Amino acid sequence: MATSFVERLGDSVVAGRPPACVGFDPRVEALPARLAGAGDPAARIVAFAREVMPRIARHVPVLKPNVAFFECFGGPGFGAYEEVCRLARSAGLLVIGDVKRGDVGSTAEAYARFHLDVADAVTLHPYLGADALEPFLQRCRREGRGVFVLARTSNPGAREFQDLELAGAAGRTLAETVAVAIHRWGEGLADRHGYTPVGAVVGATWPNELARLRALMPRAWLLLPGVGAQGGKVEDQAPAFDGHGLGALVSQSRGILQCFAPDDPDWLDRVEAALAAFAASLRSVLSDSRRPS
Amino acid sequence: MATSFVERLGDSVVAGRPPACVGFDPRVEALPARLAGAGDPAARIVAFAREVMPRIARHVPVLKPNVAFFECFGGPGFGAYEEVCRLARSAGLLVIGDVKRGDVGSTAEAYARFHLDVADAVTLHPYLGADALEPFLQRCRREGRGVFVLARTSNPGAREFQDLELAGAAGRTLAETVAVAIHRWGEGLADRHGYTPVGAVVGATWPNELARLRALMPRAWLLLPGVGAQGGKVEDQAPAFDGHGLGALVSQSRGILQCFAPDDPDWLDRVEAALAAFAASLRSVLSDSRRPS
Repeated sequence: MATSFVERLGDSVVAGRPPACVGFDPRVEALPARLAGAGDPAARIVAFAREVMPRIARHVPVLKPNVAFFECFGGPGFGAYEEVCRLARSAGLLVIGDVKRGDVGSTAEAYARFHLDVADAVTLHPYLGADALEPFLQRCRREGRGVFVLARTSNPGAREFQDLELAGAAGRTLAETVAVAIHRWGEGLADRHGYTPVGAVVGATWPNELARLRALMPRAWLLLPGVGAQGGKVEDQAPAFDGHGLGALVSQSRGILQCFAPDDPDWLDRVEAALAAFAASLRSVLSDSRRPS
Repeated sequence: MATSFVERLGDSVVAGRPPACVGFDPRVEALPARLAGAGDPAARIVAFAREVMPRIARHVPVLKPNVAFFECFGGPGFGAYEEVCRLARSAGLLVIGDVKRGDVGSTAEAYARFHLDVADAVTLHPYLGADALEPFLQRCRREGRGVFVLARTSNPGAREFQDLELAGAAGRTLAETVAVAIHRWGEGLADRHGYTPVGAVVGATWPNELARLRALMPRAWLLLPGVGAQGGKVEDQAPAFDGHGLGALVSQSRGILQCFAPDDPDWLDRVEAALAAFAASLRSVLSDSRRPS
C-alpha cells in the first residue's frame, strides 16, 4: 500500500509544512473578473483553480474543496469538482473532499467508491452510526484513505443537538460521545506518527470545547474549520496540537481565496500574501505550543 | 404561490392515490441488458428512467431518486440525476431528492438553491441543528417546497446514536428529540390537510418505535424507507397514518426497480406488476386503518 493519507499528512508537518488547510468554496460572484471569459461557472471555477493551485501548494499541504459550491451548478459543476481535486493532487496537495455525506449501507458504498477515488479523505455525518461509515472505513484500512467525522460543527446552531447531555454518561454530551466513537473506530489503525485515519471535524469556533474533545480522541487528526469569516481564531487552536505540532489541521476558506475584490488586477498576489500570513500564524501557534511550559 | 409540495401530496392521497413512493437507486449492473447500447452508465440510467417513468406515474404519486447512485458516475452521473428528476416531474410525479445533505450556513444555501430547484423536497441531516436547515426551511415557507429530516434511519446501526437517552428529558432518545424539533420547525406551517412541509425520515424497519415518533410530530409527513430488501413490511406501517390515510409515505426501492433479471425481456411488465402489488398493499393497510376500531 502506498503511504497513507494520515502518514503523508504527518510527514509533511514533521518536514516543516504548516498544519494548514485551504478551503476551496468557489462563489462565482467572488471570482476574479478577468476569468469571466473562461465560460460557464464550472469552467470559470476550473480556470481559477489552475491559477491558484501552485500558490496554494507552495504554502500549505492540504486543500479542502466543498462539493456544495460545485454541485450547485449541476453536472458541469460536479465535473469541475473532480477536475479541481485532480489539479490539487497533481500539484502535490492532499485533498480532503468536504462532502459531509452520510447514508445507509449500499448507498454509503456508492458514495465511498466515488468520493475516496476523487479525494484522499472526506468529511462524513455520524448520525447513522458505524455501519453507515463502514464502506469508508474499509477504504481507510485497506487503501490508506482518511475520514473526518463531524463531531462539533462550526455553526452557531451546533449546540442544539451536539450539546445535549446524555443520560448515564457522566455528563457527556452528544458531540463528546461521537468523539469517543471516533476514537474507538480508529483503534489499532495508528500510523508511525501515532494517528489513525479516522479523524474528526471540530469547529475552530469553539475554543472552550477543544481541549476536552482533543482528550477524548487523542489519536485522531482534528480538522478545524471556521477560522476567519466564521469567527474562529488561529491562536485559539493551540490545544489541538500535540508536542510535535501534529494532530490538527486548521482550515480557512473565504479569508484566503476570497481575500480580493473581483476587479483587483493583483488578486493573485493578494492570495499569496494571505496564504503566507495564514501559514505564518500556524507556525507561530506551533512554536508557542512546543515551548516548554 | 403554486400549490405546495405537501398539499399536492395530501391532495393526491385524498384523491385515492396510494401513499407510496418509489426509490430510484440505479445500480448499473441491475439495469435491463437491452439498454446496454444506450451509452455510458449515466446515459443508460436516463434511458431506463424514460421507459419506467410512465409506469411509475400510473401507480404511485412520488419518486425518490437517491443522488448517490448518480454522483458516483461523476459529472455525467450528476447530470443524469437532474434529467431523471425532470422526467419524473414531467410525468406528473412529485420528486423527493434523497440527498441527505447537511452543512453550515452559506454552504447550506448553495445546497438548498440547487436541490430544491431540481426536486420538490429533499432529505436532510439534523446533526448541525436548525440554522443549517434554515435555507431549506425558507424555501418551504416561501415557495412551497418540502424537507424530510432524518429522525430514525432504516439501517441496523441507527441505534448507535439515535437510541441514546438524553439527560433530563424524561427518557427521551436523540431520535425522539429530533422528532420534537421537527414538529417545532413546522409550527404555523400546516396546510389544509393539517400537515407541514417539515417532514421526517423514519425507517420502515422500526415498527416498535413508529407510534411514539408519530405522536411526537403529529403534523409531519413521515417518509418511511426500508420496505422490502431492508426488511421493513408495508403492513407494519399502519400506525404512521391518520384516520384519512394521510401523514405517511412508504418507500420501496429495490423491490420495484430491481425486481427483474437484467436479461428478462419482460422486465417492464414485471416492474408494472411490482408497482401494482406495492400500491395494493398500501391500499390494504389504509383500508384496515380506516376501519372503525
